[in-house]
This record gives sequence, C-alpha cells and structure tokens, in this order.
Amino acid sequence: MQALSQTNVNRARLLITCADRPGVVAAVSQLLYEQGANVVDSDQHTEPDDLRFFMRLEFDLPGLQERLPALEQSFRPVAERFGMQWQLTPAARVKRMAVFVSKQDHCLQELLWLLKKSELAAHIPLVVSNHPDAREVVAPFGVPLHHVPVTPDTKAQAEAEVLELMRTHQVDLIVLARYMQILSAGFIERFGRPIINIHHSFLPAFVGANPYAQAHARGVKLIGATAHYVTAELDAGPIIDQDVHRVGHRDAVADLVRIGRRVERTVLARAVAWHLEDRVLLHGNKTVVFA
Amino acid sequence: MQALSQTNVNRARLLITCADRPGVVAAVSQLLYEQGANVVDSDQHTEPDDLRFFMRLEFDLPGLQERLPALEQSFRPVAERFGMQWQLTPAARVKRMAVFVSKQDHCLQELLWLLKKSELAAHIPLVVSNHPDAREVVAPFGVPLHHVPVTPDTKAQAEAEVLELMRTHQVDLIVLARYMQILSAGFIERFGRPIINIHHSFLPAFVGANPYAQAHARGVKLIGATAHYVTAELDAGPIIDQDVHRVGHRDAVADLVRIGRRVERTVLARAVAWHLEDRVLLHGNKTVVFA
Amino acid sequence: MQALSQTNVNRARLLITCADRPGVVAAVSQLLYEQGANVVDSDQHTEPDDLRFFMRLEFDLPGLQERLPALEQSFRPVAERFGMQWQLTPAARVKRMAVFVSKQDHCLQELLWLLKKSELAAHIPLVVSNHPDAREVVAPFGVPLHHVPVTPDTKAQAEAEVLELMRTHQVDLIVLARYMQILSAGFIERFGRPIINIHHSFLPAFVGANPYAQAHARGVKLIGATAHYVTAELDAGPIIDQDVHRVGHRDAVADLVRIGRRVERTVLARAVAWHLEDRVLLHGNKTVVFA
Amino acid sequence: MQALSQTNVNRARLLITCADRPGVVAAVSQLLYEQGANVVDSDQHTEPDDLRFFMRLEFDLPGLQERLPALEQSFRPVAERFGMQWQLTPAARVKRMAVFVSKQDHCLQELLWLLKKSELAAHIPLVVSNHPDAREVVAPFGVPLHHVPVTPDTKAQAEAEVLELMRTHQVDLIVLARYMQILSAGFIERFGRPIINIHHSFLPAFVGANPYAQAHARGVKLIGATAHYVTAELDAGPIIDQDVHRVGHRDAVADLVRIGRRVERTVLARAVAWHLEDRVLLHGNKTVVFA
Repeated sequence: MQALSQTNVNRARLLITCADRPGVVAAVSQLLYEQGANVVDSDQHTEPDDLRFFMRLEFDLPGLQERLPALEQSFRPVAERFGMQWQLTPAARVKRMAVFVSKQDHCLQELLWLLKKSELAAHIPLVVSNHPDAREVVAPFGVPLHHVPVTPDTKAQAEAEVLELMRTHQVDLIVLARYMQILSAGFIERFGRPIINIHHSFLPAFVGANPYAQAHARGVKLIGATAHYVTAELDAGPIIDQDVHRVGHRDAVADLVRIGRRVERTVLARAVAWHLEDRVLLHGNKTVVFA
Repeated sequence: MQALSQTNVNRARLLITCADRPGVVAAVSQLLYEQGANVVDSDQHTEPDDLRFFMRLEFDLPGLQERLPALEQSFRPVAERFGMQWQLTPAARVKRMAVFVSKQDHCLQELLWLLKKSELAAHIPLVVSNHPDAREVVAPFGVPLHHVPVTPDTKAQAEAEVLELMRTHQVDLIVLARYMQILSAGFIERFGRPIINIHHSFLPAFVGANPYAQAHARGVKLIGATAHYVTAELDAGPIIDQDVHRVGHRDAVADLVRIGRRVERTVLARAVAWHLEDRVLLHGNKTVVFA
Repeated sequence: MQALSQTNVNRARLLITCADRPGVVAAVSQLLYEQGANVVDSDQHTEPDDLRFFMRLEFDLPGLQERLPALEQSFRPVAERFGMQWQLTPAARVKRMAVFVSKQDHCLQELLWLLKKSELAAHIPLVVSNHPDAREVVAPFGVPLHHVPVTPDTKAQAEAEVLELMRTHQVDLIVLARYMQILSAGFIERFGRPIINIHHSFLPAFVGANPYAQAHARGVKLIGATAHYVTAELDAGPIIDQDVHRVGHRDAVADLVRIGRRVERTVLARAVAWHLEDRVLLHGNKTVVFA
Repeated sequence: MQALSQTNVNRARLLITCADRPGVVAAVSQLLYEQGANVVDSDQHTEPDDLRFFMRLEFDLPGLQERLPALEQSFRPVAERFGMQWQLTPAARVKRMAVFVSKQDHCLQELLWLLKKSELAAHIPLVVSNHPDAREVVAPFGVPLHHVPVTPDTKAQAEAEVLELMRTHQVDLIVLARYMQILSAGFIERFGRPIINIHHSFLPAFVGANPYAQAHARGVKLIGATAHYVTAELDAGPIIDQDVHRVGHRDAVADLVRIGRRVERTVLARAVAWHLEDRVLLHGNKTVVFA
C-alpha cells in the first residue's frame, strides 16, 4: 500500500457496505467522476454467501476540503437508494488514538516509534495505564501518561474516569497494547468507537489468560498473535490480522514470551495501520481487509 | 479467490490497461451496468510512477454467450476513447495449455493432479518433452506426450516441429515445467502467446544453470523459486510469483533440490492458476497481480 | 537433513531418553567409540522444567549388520545404569507403513509420490480405506488397497479386520491420511505402535469435524494443518509439526479446503519423514524433534 | 533457545571445529565429565563434502570461574590431538559490542530496546556514527555516541580514529546497523574480530547500493534482508541469517523501504543474538548455526 497517502490534502477514502445490487459500482463511480474526483485505487468484493457488497475507493479531488460538504450531500441520495453504510474520510484527517497499556510496554513502544517514523498516520493525545511503569517509555515522545489504577472494587469508577478522558481528548480509536484489564460491556458500549486489542495467541486457540503457558503445555510448533476488534465477548471479536512464528522443543515459556513479543508488535502495528488508513470493513463478526 | 468461477457460464472477466484519466472507472462500470452486467469483484490500481491504470473486473451477465459480441461492440468505443489495451474473457472459456518438461517431472505431476482435482481451469492437449521419461507420468491422465529430442544441431528443426504442434493444438499458453532447453528468441516471437517458466531460485539471485549448487556454495539460508513470463533474455522476464523455504547447514545440495521441488511446485501452480483466471497484467517488465 | 541416509548400510541411529545425569553423553560416546563407530550427527537437549534428557546420534559402523547384536549387548548395561529408554535402528531398515484414507486422496497421493521419488524411506505394504475410491490412485504404484467399510454397527468388526491386516503385513506405523473414521481406544492400544494423523486445522483451534467451516465462520486470517500422534483423546495427541497459510475475505470455505490441501500435504509429508528417520522423541504429550 | 542462559554463572559454551575423526565426541565428553561438568545442550554436525566436524556444547560446572583455567589446561592436549580450533566462553562473560550507524536508526533502536529488555546479552560501550543524528536515540539508554565524520579525503584518518576507539573500549564485536560507509580491508584486518553487517536485500541478489530501488525495478514479489560477517569483498561474507517479506504491485519503493525496515530489524537482531550466544561457527565462507 502507498505509505503516507495522508500527506495529500486532496485525497479521500470512501468505504461502502450494502446489499449487492446491479449498478452500485456504476452509480458511485459516475458520481465521483461528475464531482471531478479521480479514483487512484479501488477494491471491491461481493460475499457470495450473503451477497453483501463491500467497496473501498481512494480518490483525489482538487480543493477537497472546501468541496467535501457538497460531495457528501450529492452522495447521500445514492447511498440511500442502495441502502449503503458508508464513510467518507479525507486522508489528511488523522485519527486520534489512545493507547492502553499495563506493565508490558513492547507494543506501546513499537507504536510510538512507528508514529515518529511517520509509518503510522495517527495522533496519540494520551496513553492510559493501570500501572505507572510506562512513564519512562512515553516521556521521550512527549505523550502524557494517565495512570488509572484498577482494582476489583474501583473498576467501575476507573472506567468512568477513562471514559471521561476519551471524551475530553476526542479519541477516535482505542488500542489495547497488552492492557491486562478486561473492559466491561458497558464501557465498550458507551465508548461506541472501535477498540483494537492484541491477543498473544493464534485465536481461537488459547483464549483467556497465559496463552504462552497454554501453548507450551500443548506443545504447539507455532505461536501466534491476533489483532481484533473488541466486543463484549472476551477474545471473540472480528479478527483483523494474525501471524505466527515457528518454535521448537528448545523453547521454554520464557522463549515463547520473547519470540511472541515480536509477533505481537508486528501484527498489532499492521492492524492499526490498516484501520488508520480505512482499510478494514466489518462483516458481521468478520472483517474485510482491503490491504 | 473463488475457486472454479469458470463453472458459471454467465461470468466474464475484463482486464484493462491504459493511461490514467478521470472517468475511466465510471465509463466502464456505467457501460457494464447498462448492458445488464453485475460486477461481483473488481480490483484497480494506478501506478504512481507513470500514472498507468490497471483494472480487473469480474461480472455476471445473464445469457453471456449470446450477448458477448454485442457487449464487445459496445465496449470498443469506450476502449478507444481511453486508449485501452483490454481483454474480455468468459470464465467458461478454458485456456489450452501445453506443458514442456525434461527429466524432472514433479512440476508436471503437480499440474496434472491439480487439473484432475479441478483446482486449475485448463485443458492440456499435449505435453512436450525432449526426453521420453515423462510418458509414465502422463499416461494415467490420458494426455499425449510428444517426444521432441533436441540437440545443438537439430534445435532449429525441433523448435519448428514444436511450433507446428502448438499451432495444430491451438495452444494459448506454454508452461515450462522444468524444461531444460532454452527457447530461442525466434520461437518466443513466432509463438506470440504467453510462456510461463519456473526457475529454481529466488531471481535475480542465481540466474542460469545449477542454481541449487550456486545457492549451496554461497551459503544462503533461504532457497526459492520464481515463476515468470519468458522473454528473449534468459531468466529476466516479468516475475509472477516467488516463494522461499528456510535451509541450514545440515542441508546438502541434494536436500536443497528436494526442498526446492516443493517450492517450485507451489509457486508454479499458483502462478499458472492466476494466469488461467486472468489475474496477471503486464506493466513493462513487471506484473500487476490481482489475486 | 541429509536425504536418504538409509542407503548407507553401515549407518545407524540411536535415540535416548532418560533423567538427566552427569556422564550420560560421555558414557554413550565413549562406548560408541570403543565399538568403532564414528558419530556423524548428534543432537541433544535437556528439558529444564523436569531435567529430562533427550539425544539422537547418527553414526557409521563398518560391518554394522553383523556387529549390531554385539553393539546392543554392550549398550544394555549403559542404558540400565542411566535408566534409559532407547532405540537403535539401522538406517537401512526401512519402516513398514500402512496408509489409511477415506474419499480425499491428496495426502495419500503425496506420500506415494514422495516414496517413488525416494524422498520418503518407507515400504507401503497396503493402503486401507473405508471407501473404494482410492483404488485408481494406488494402482500406478502397485500398492494393494484393502477396502474395509465402516458403519456404526460394524465398527468393532472392521477394526478387528484392520488389526489383523496390520499384523499380517507387520506394519510399524499407521498414517491417517485424511481417514475420516475415529479409531477406538481399544484399536490404538492393541496396535501398540505409532499412528500419525493429519488434522486439517491449527490445533488446538478447531478440534473435531469441519475445521475449515469453523475457521471460515470465525474469520481467521491463517488456516493450518497439524500432524500429531494419535492417542485415545481426539485431536489431542503429541504434535509433530504444524504450518499455516494466509487467507482473506475473498476465500470461501471451498478455497480454504483447496489451500488447506497443500498445507496438509506439506505438513504430513514432513512429519512422516521425520518419524521414518527416527527424529521424533516423545516427552509426555509433547515431542522433541531433532530435525 | 533458552533466553538469558548467561545469568547462570556456572554455565559455559564450548565451540569446536576440526577434521572429523573417530573418537572426538567421546574424548570431549569424557573430559568434561571427568572435570565435573554436566552437558545441558549439545549439537554437532559433520559436513559430508569435506568431512569437517563442528560442535557446540553448553554445560554447567560448579565453581566455573575458579576452575576455568584448569579446565582449559586439561582441554589443550585433547584439542591438539584432534587439531581443533576451539573457543571456551563462560555464558556470564558478556561481549562488548560497538554499533555503527549512519542516518537510518531503526536497527540501532531495535538493538538498544532488546538490550534493555535483556533479550540480548551484550554490553554496548559506544555507538559510532558518521552523522550526529542518532544522538537523540542513544541518549535515553545512556550510551555515548562518537560522531566520526567520513569524507573521501579523511577516510583513512577516520578509520584510524575508530580503530583507536575500538581498542580503548575493548570491543569484541562491531555491528554495522545500516552504517553507510564501506570499511577498508585494512580496517577489517587490523580490527581482527567479528563484524556483522545487515544488508537490505536477499543476498546475493541486489549487491551494493539502493537494493530496494533495484528490487522495485526488477519487480520481485519478496524483499529481504541478510545479516552476514564482513569480509574484504563487499556484501560477500558468510551469511548468518536471512528473511523475506511478501510485496506486491501496490508497493512503491518507499513501501519496500518501510516493510524492509522490519525485516532488517528482525534479521539483524536474530543474527546478533546467535553470535552473542556463541551459536555461529565459520566454515569457509559459510556458517554453521547451532540455533
């Protein structure tokens, strides 16, 4: 994929999901053409099982910023005609991403570093942690760490506090970068925006706690990591990306943890990048990834 | 990708290459819509370096067979307007593929198996070999083997004979499945249709003869295979697919050969499948693969 | 690994498992040296969790065949002293392997072909199937197919018949190459020798029936296959090898099946090769693979 | 491999290379046993081409530090008898590693992180750079950066200065972490210790400058990185590790650079870890890696 397309102020991305009907591609591309947009990348898929239609278009429109309201207005009737769920985002509109972390900081570190290298197009207004340990990691990047301790007794209160932080900082996306607290269904619902989690196993194997210990006990020959959207059911949300690495009898649990860190970093970074570039569409409990 | 879409008699594939200009997607999709076609899969890419436009559409059109000439006729002016190179192929029109082989028969075997399992949508009217060894392999599949020996002295004559076989059998595609003869520039030109070769190394490393011996001497930690279209320059044509497998100090040249056989089979099978499904477009000496 | 070391009539392999104690490596290598053996490859591992010792030695001993009984006799006291489980096998003693298959024949086909290419060092005295379909596949290889139908009512009788076949043909190893019957605990116990199964998922995800449909429903981004020894508990025996392949939203269940076939073939072939070359040692419900 | 075995003060590693002769394994293991050492991991390989013998042993010896001189003295006659090159290293003796870098700092950053996470067992007394840019990267880790600019005119003088730094800081190993200067043959010889380089392509493809641009021009479908020991011939030294990542037509040169960074980080980190744990033996221009 083209890196950093967000630096082009005239570029936008259009995501569409609807029931498949003849003429939908024609209607959308005709409208974009009439508005003076030039499509530079498009990807489309119709799911044969349920005839669900998915499309992602990336286009350039000179003077995008001023013309965006008019474009949206002209698109609305088309969207209505086909019963579309849709999202139109200027590539230059960088998402605001909050990173949640506990003691393990390798995923946080990776995200901060990629951000600094301009490999991720996000703004991180804050990092939230139930431990103060990550302070040292965020400091060189000038990102504030909000330490919100969580105990069984204070969990509801802590979640309310975090939710308020999300509101204040206008957060578009939460990334759980090895955050060892389970967010309540209420939190997920009230936040109402995407939450990406990195689970340190190849889901659905080894759901829940200590997946590397589980993997070692079972004697698997590959360990993995899974980035997925968070839903109320633990480790069961739509999978965005997964990867694995080969292990063997010489690898103790500590080695799986160490090798796994690299897989987690890679998978989470890729999933977050795809989300930030509007490449991930939901299809029930699954994802369509136009990467 | 959807396996065996070719069994749908109403399905067709449209490939387009042209200079990028606003309105091309709109024009094509509008036309397909007006003709009653329903696009089920589309993929498009504009190369930022030279603003070259590439598109692949898969669509269903009831009564395709009868309506194809009309569709082509209506498409011609659009194609002319945008200066398109294009190709419109009914999925049910199975390509005629000749397989060339020498003594090593593992790639031939793999292709024949996959064909039998309906994993490849091709018809193989003949196998050509400069050795008689493969006769036993082709026999259970009912495919005739044409034994055309080649010596330095008889090469021109042999190529003429093979060319005549290609003409007689109306061959659309030649696959060099470890054929150890170098086809002359004249043959390639006179055949005038695609030729896919499997080279047993990760090109452009180890061009030419004995790549596994070369790889062993260099002490590489990965060996690979490359499927590419054949051009007049040896091992330098557009690459369709590549893959590698990890090797180590315990692997002798014979082991590289053995491990490599699996990589060759996999890579060639994938490249041939993509070609047969019209997923590969040429871009100078490179390929755009809409897989 | 060195291919086809079994052609060396003077080569043998020694596998050792015992509690780790100082002097065990010295005792074994000293004894081999005194007997005139030259170690060409050795690999050793001590499990830190339970201090279990595992070793594999490959050595050449001139006149092996005649001297094997003497070697074994001289080794016995050493083995006793250290409480070893051990196995000494001439590389030239090719194992007798029965392949069990149902309707899907791709794994059987792969094994037969690798055997023919001398990539697997086994003798296949018979193939057993609960369907007659594979007859055509085995015919060109001259391997007899025993068709033993299984119904819920006749299962006990069928297993008895199969067990008798194993005895008659002196089978060392059963390979379940997509055999869709579950062997009873009684059968496994009475056979008393290794049984390798290929499960078409990344275990322990998707235990049981229809793993590709399960994988598609969960929306995983990698599908896998697992080769493991069979125990009384379904899909829970020691894992020998696993691998995965990337899939995406364009892949329907039929595509997962097709892609999975290649993974299954590769993983099963590798696991069987390792077993045939005495590279797999058991450690509780896990394996130590000296590959 | 066991992480952080270096924390065990009684653990040592013995590397041996010699011509293969019967009795070598017995002699070594007998001696270790007599000295009271307990072998916890051993790996051995005999190269069939030239009958060269390679061995790595990891063992525990109570009171190692005091008994090391005696052990070495008792080992010397055995080594002489078999004409061994050998190296005996306490695991607790951490190597002193200098990292050389230019403007690209991702590999340096990765090494510093892993060090902090105790994933690499090294001490970094200094970082050398021909640019001042990395100062910000090393600061949080408390590692001094020596800025030694290099121009064609001052190259000899700069190398002398760097050599002096290596001597002062008693450097065991230089790691070229995207250092864009070519070290002279004289420097390499005078330093006389291992130098590891990360080359940003799958060697021997794309030797020399701008490998990602070369890879893009050739249209390869995999890009790679190679970690190798530096010799006087550019990019031609013994390869320690390599890896690749899949790319496609949507990836511009900038994308290859970005994707490649991750491959470079991974491959260099792995190669350096293996070197630090004494897992890499030289065999002519190749390596034996007991990982």
